[in-house]
Amino acid sequence: MKRPLASEIPTLIPFEPNSGIPFYKQIYNGYRTAILSGQLRPGQRLPSTRTLAVELGISRLPVVNAFEQLLHEGYVEGKSGAGTYVKDTIPDEFARPVLERRLEFKKPLEPADTLEEIVGPFRVSLPALDQFPNKIWSRLVSRHAKNLSVELMTYGDPSGYLPLREAIAQYLNTSRAVRCEANQILIVSGSQMALHICARALLKPGDAVCIEDPAYPGARDALRSTSATLLPIPLDEQGIDINRIALQKKGARAVYVTPSHQYPLGLTMTASRRLELLDWARRNKSWIIEDDYDSEYRYTSRPVGSLQGMDTASRVIYIGTFSRVVFPSLRLGYLVVPIELFNEFRSLRETLDIFSPTLYQLVLTDFLQEGHFSRHLRRMRVTYLDRRNAFLKALSDHLGKYLTPYNTDAGLHLSAFLPVGIDDREIVRKAAEHGVSATALSTCYARKHSRSGLILGFGGANERRIRAAAQHSVK
Amino acid sequence: MKRPLASEIPTLIPFEPNSGIPFYKQIYNGYRTAILSGQLRPGQRLPSTRTLAVELGISRLPVVNAFEQLLHEGYVEGKSGAGTYVKDTIPDEFARPVLERRLEFKKPLEPADTLEEIVGPFRVSLPALDQFPNKIWSRLVSRHAKNLSVELMTYGDPSGYLPLREAIAQYLNTSRAVRCEANQILIVSGSQMALHICARALLKPGDAVCIEDPAYPGARDALRSTSATLLPIPLDEQGIDINRIALQKKGARAVYVTPSHQYPLGLTMTASRRLELLDWARRNKSWIIEDDYDSEYRYTSRPVGSLQGMDTASRVIYIGTFSRVVFPSLRLGYLVVPIELFNEFRSLRETLDIFSPTLYQLVLTDFLQEGHFSRHLRRMRVTYLDRRNAFLKALSDHLGKYLTPYNTDAGLHLSAFLPVGIDDREIVRKAAEHGVSATALSTCYARKHSRSGLILGFGGANERRIRAAAQHSVK
Repeated sequence: MKRPLASEIPTLIPFEPNSGIPFYKQIYNGYRTAILSGQLRPGQRLPSTRTLAVELGISRLPVVNAFEQLLHEGYVEGKSGAGTYVKDTIPDEFARPVLERRLEFKKPLEPADTLEEIVGPFRVSLPALDQFPNKIWSRLVSRHAKNLSVELMTYGDPSGYLPLREAIAQYLNTSRAVRCEANQILIVSGSQMALHICARALLKPGDAVCIEDPAYPGARDALRSTSATLLPIPLDEQGIDINRIALQKKGARAVYVTPSHQYPLGLTMTASRRLELLDWARRNKSWIIEDDYDSEYRYTSRPVGSLQGMDTASRVIYIGTFSRVVFPSLRLGYLVVPIELFNEFRSLRETLDIFSPTLYQLVLTDFLQEGHFSRHLRRMRVTYLDRRNAFLKALSDHLGKYLTPYNTDAGLHLSAFLPVGIDDREIVRKAAEHGVSATALSTCYARKHSRSGLILGFGGANERRIRAAAQHSVK
Repeated sequence: MKRPLASEIPTLIPFEPNSGIPFYKQIYNGYRTAILSGQLRPGQRLPSTRTLAVELGISRLPVVNAFEQLLHEGYVEGKSGAGTYVKDTIPDEFARPVLERRLEFKKPLEPADTLEEIVGPFRVSLPALDQFPNKIWSRLVSRHAKNLSVELMTYGDPSGYLPLREAIAQYLNTSRAVRCEANQILIVSGSQMALHICARALLKPGDAVCIEDPAYPGARDALRSTSATLLPIPLDEQGIDINRIALQKKGARAVYVTPSHQYPLGLTMTASRRLELLDWARRNKSWIIEDDYDSEYRYTSRPVGSLQGMDTASRVIYIGTFSRVVFPSLRLGYLVVPIELFNEFRSLRETLDIFSPTLYQLVLTDFLQEGHFSRHLRRMRVTYLDRRNAFLKALSDHLGKYLTPYNTDAGLHLSAFLPVGIDDREIVRKAAEHGVSATALSTCYARKHSRSGLILGFGGANERRIRAAAQHSVK
């Protein structure tokens, strides 16, 4: 299906060597935008990495990295030597059941009466607190605590501390491909409060809102808080099923999705599905609530860009949190809001609890601005990759006959299916009696036909503890 | 109407010299409880202060203090030498227009075209941040920041940090006559979030809730958040008008009041009105939301006990905040909830934003436990009394012809009426153009027939600034 053009297309991407944005990122962003905007059409050939490197006057490595990322995310296709082409269709991105091919489940599934103790002490969403740069953080806290200025003590801006909003905007632009300015950033206490504000801003009583099914139960609670009607929409391997959204008799005013790392199933929404969703929202003047939780840690590719960054019609409200990338008790997160909605969101945030404590906003600003945050993220990617690999091995070695992990490509937890007929809530209850923490997959479903399984965090325990816990669990 | 009994009644109050509770407080509490419970009947004579002091084996001073407080709050009456008697009716407590008798308004009211600049830079609710014990607080913050334990970083209990809840329960029992245990205390980010949780816990869409009129607009916003119907109820000089509550066609599921220091008018609800309100709630199985904001600072008497402490039917939800007694950016407040409602409140708090940041909870616990808090409160009473007196004098000297202060007995702000026909919002708008902060009284009214006036804070500026601002305002 390739239709190579007579010559390679010229370099048409914006590229500024002195902008401070990594070269590979600029190249990746440039071609991605060109493809998504239709500037580059299916079948068009990209320049060779060598040619492009020469044209841009840089080394070949960042070009190769950018092309690999485009290849990996399904925007282009190609084989070494034969050139790189824009794909005919924006294809599925991470729809392959990664893990089944990687792990071998040697033993057949067995009856579950011995399953009580199979769960490790793996609380979902707990980051590696033992790896946090405590000394740096303490120093920043003490710095501000010693200088207890009136600014630090008095009422703060409900939008949040401006330098923090600026630092977040910069981070989101570079690292998450979110298109925003600081004046679109609203500081909140975390994604839970962000969802409450979304519900109050976007949904009147009786309005319908679509939500992925399964989903985080806390999201359902928050979206229901204005007496909106929740429409649970099933997922296929590409993400939320747009046809099912379109089939709802009651037009949905908004849809809640976790495109980077679906909670709890771990899917990444494919690029084509993202475009379909954005198109649906644009045509129906509906809102997309993008909860980009856990997007920072991917193990088989670089982080996937945000849905918000692909949105050209300002239909996306983007939610992020520092709970997992800094630590949970920080209680700081943010919304990125289309500018025309900002004042309403801000006023609702003020009505809810006025503003977030100032001290940690100042400390987090320093943490971001002084580069500690990005260093921490880089270190944590390695740590979590090790923990995830140890966890998968331990699951395979000791629990492979009971648990089938699913989509383990990203984040700090995974879902693993239990054999059909096993009541996951009962397992979790019994595990809790042994001091072991897990979440029943079925609690995440709104519909009746749920899958039985466990959601297990692997971020909070080191490799030795992971192995010990998994061994203990099969005793 | 006095019916002196043959002999003085015996000492029947609980008194424990080694309990750590101040003597005067034990005596006051004991007699107040005895009167409210009917154990002491109208007309009964109390022992003389001398007799009681001898019986208790203490000096006479705390007894005199306790009796003065009882006298002041209208539980007893008496003249020196003639004995002290339980009153026939629990009378009005602070219904006198205190200030009119204290200040002289020499000049007649004049047309208002020169009123633009009469407002001082007096932001409502701002505490004396310049008087805060910064060094002590910084030391406590650094202490915990240096020991960045996993406990401090991980997910916290949505109810709040237990030692903090214990410290608050102790403070409320001793200082605010609130009857509670730590397991009834729910930590939130402040009274605004507390009101949201109350709305969600107590009010279904369409339920009616009575609210004082005028009231803090943020309270109206929060109580409306579940689409409840707000019924604005006028005040008389005793507090909210119970007859008007009873007259509402739609039975009210809850009523929101600020009995210690009505916002914005500064009234203190009288003891008899409190009993009426509690009786109404008990008979109708309705809830009372007591917002005890600003209760800590009284200038002509000791703090009045809470409504919650007089409630024998568990109908009161009590709200407190540290925004004004510590500092606003702390973002910590609390609810005291009848134990049978606690789990629901806790779960709603979790749905709203999971939990409050841990660091400041630990710091505040130390601040309370190590006695810094009560020392700070004692010092601040003197500071605010001085500022209030300077403010009243400045108002009288420079702005007496424009502004008539009303109920200046407590808190960090006062309301002052403008001459009839003056648009207070216009004054506030123009004042804001001059960088001067004030709040228009009319914005606090839900009904149309509002009073025109200004709400002015005097907590945040020292006496020199107060005088300078008031002088400047009449230029």
